[in-house]
Amino acid sequence: MTELSKAAIERIMKNAGAGRISADAIETLMVLMEEYGSFITKEAKKMSDHAGRKTLRGSDIRIAAEIFK
Amino acid sequence: MTELSKAAIERIMKNAGAGRISADAIETLMVLMEEYGSFITKEAKKMSDHAGRKTLRGSDIRIAAEIFK
Repeated sequence: MTELSKAAIERIMKNAGAGRISADAIETLMVLMEEYGSFITKEAKKMSDHAGRKTLRGSDIRIAAEIFK
Repeated sequence: MTELSKAAIERIMKNAGAGRISADAIETLMVLMEEYGSFITKEAKKMSDHAGRKTLRGSDIRIAAEIFK
């Protein structure tokens, strides 16, 4: 895991209004974001498998995110 | 927005078991992951503000993620 860059996570946090951020906070959010992305992908894959498709589409991702919101 | 790299998102999806993935699916998940990270950061900032701190900590992120799971 940990495919995301810390710099990108920090930018997202700054864009969201964070001031000072500890290294631990960046690391923690990075892991959580990857877990979220991984979870949504697995659920989306069930949708595409169920639809008899081999290619994961944006609509599969959207439905999975909608269900687990 | 869109601070994350598409290559990183695609690796996360492959690691999660996705086979073929449309460009649209990568783009969609990227936006969702950024929204998630942004949302958790905003909630975590409320926690650190409430605690009278200026620095966002990992524990703020964890509590925010726990509440909105």
